[in-house]
Amino acid sequence: MASERLEFASDLARKAGALALDYFRKLDTLTVTQKGHQDLVSEADRNVELLIREELAKAYPQDGILGEEHGMEEGESGYTWVTDPIDGTANFVTGIPQWCVIIACVHQGQVIAGVIHDPVANETFTAYAGGGAYLNGTPIKASSSDSLSNGSVGVGFNGRSAVTDAVNVVGALVSKGGIFFRNASGGLMLAYAASGRLIGYVESHMNAWDCLAGMLITQEAGGKVMDQDISRSLYHGARIVVGAPGVFDELKEIAESSFAPLEAAE
Amino acid sequence: MASERLEFASDLARKAGALALDYFRKLDTLTVTQKGHQDLVSEADRNVELLIREELAKAYPQDGILGEEHGMEEGESGYTWVTDPIDGTANFVTGIPQWCVIIACVHQGQVIAGVIHDPVANETFTAYAGGGAYLNGTPIKASSSDSLSNGSVGVGFNGRSAVTDAVNVVGALVSKGGIFFRNASGGLMLAYAASGRLIGYVESHMNAWDCLAGMLITQEAGGKVMDQDISRSLYHGARIVVGAPGVFDELKEIAESSFAPLEAAE
Repeated sequence: MASERLEFASDLARKAGALALDYFRKLDTLTVTQKGHQDLVSEADRNVELLIREELAKAYPQDGILGEEHGMEEGESGYTWVTDPIDGTANFVTGIPQWCVIIACVHQGQVIAGVIHDPVANETFTAYAGGGAYLNGTPIKASSSDSLSNGSVGVGFNGRSAVTDAVNVVGALVSKGGIFFRNASGGLMLAYAASGRLIGYVESHMNAWDCLAGMLITQEAGGKVMDQDISRSLYHGARIVVGAPGVFDELKEIAESSFAPLEAAE
Repeated sequence: MASERLEFASDLARKAGALALDYFRKLDTLTVTQKGHQDLVSEADRNVELLIREELAKAYPQDGILGEEHGMEEGESGYTWVTDPIDGTANFVTGIPQWCVIIACVHQGQVIAGVIHDPVANETFTAYAGGGAYLNGTPIKASSSDSLSNGSVGVGFNGRSAVTDAVNVVGALVSKGGIFFRNASGGLMLAYAASGRLIGYVESHMNAWDCLAGMLITQEAGGKVMDQDISRSLYHGARIVVGAPGVFDELKEIAESSFAPLEAAE
């Protein structure tokens, strides 16, 4: 059941977050060469994902698992877990305390559970399909803003899309009186859009492990999410537009006029 | 002496940060109307600054104080304290845990001490003139990056400058292989530039209470800072370019080609 799997995933995200935080603190105090530093980050990424995989395999041995670091392991139950052990790696590497652990679960082409956990600020955003959205157990709601000039919009930037994609979004947004935000963790920005801290989030291409949890949490918080073929996005990622109902259509227009054709991004 | 004033300011910033954090947590749990919400934020801003002013007046009754909320109170000692009680107010209002308390001290046209304190992540960035730069007591260094494609650059966006200023910077940066970052707290982004987490920070106009501490901390951490007339900036703010020595000149060129003339921003 979705609610049981969510509860399990929430606990697991917090456990994984604690391990990631240990590494993060170590990076902070360690005097290491650039190379040694990078090695420790890679170790963190790998080991946090391994922890998540092991616990999932114990609890749900029939489920599939897709992770950023260790790829897809097919399952037999029809359920597939999708995880990014550390989202916002560039922040994690340099010591910026803005990154998160993401776990989602997909069943029959639907995201049924999603968790985004920020260990530094101790914030856990959760949702299961039909069950509403929560931050540390308290219900959250997408923004009630009905104007791009009322609130900020998260903008994603990645190495997989045309470099002009994000620049165009920033330009279009600002020309309409909007404000852009980019703290370099797509997972956190989606969580902020879900909880009304941002009025939306736009990125030309996100991988499944980065976006599926946030899409569900936003939807369950009353935000709008651009339709995706979830089964396809598991393998190919997706174009992401989410937002407050009052600004979603405008955000979609901005995305459509800003982004190079999706084919180019894959 | 600069080091004594810095020690005092560090303790004070942490005390002020604790009060601000109380308000921040209250906002989080309080179900209030948009109006009530805004009132509580204004109260937080005002009262945190009052706390800072009161403690400074007790310890250094002859010094002047300039704060975002309560303006300039001239002193007689030649020392002027400059404070932003909550930098990143838009984040604070909406619940994004990325904001800080800033305190700087100016003497004879020089910033002699600066503190940027992030209560959520428990990070205190400090420097006094000639004394090096620190994060929670541990020395920090600006980035050793020598290319815009190696690291991210913080970009400021404010309501006082031409709206195209920040858009132009983002465009120029990305066209040179760079990556932009904007977490909506200029104070935090300057602290990140000082500590090598970002390779630089660029904003077309910042007020004194937002930028002076970060400029000193960056300088003391070995970063480069565009020259400013500090005495003038107390009243008029300044154009800000700071960066790792290896990318500073390029950042300055980007700023020069991106920003509308400064007069237009005042």
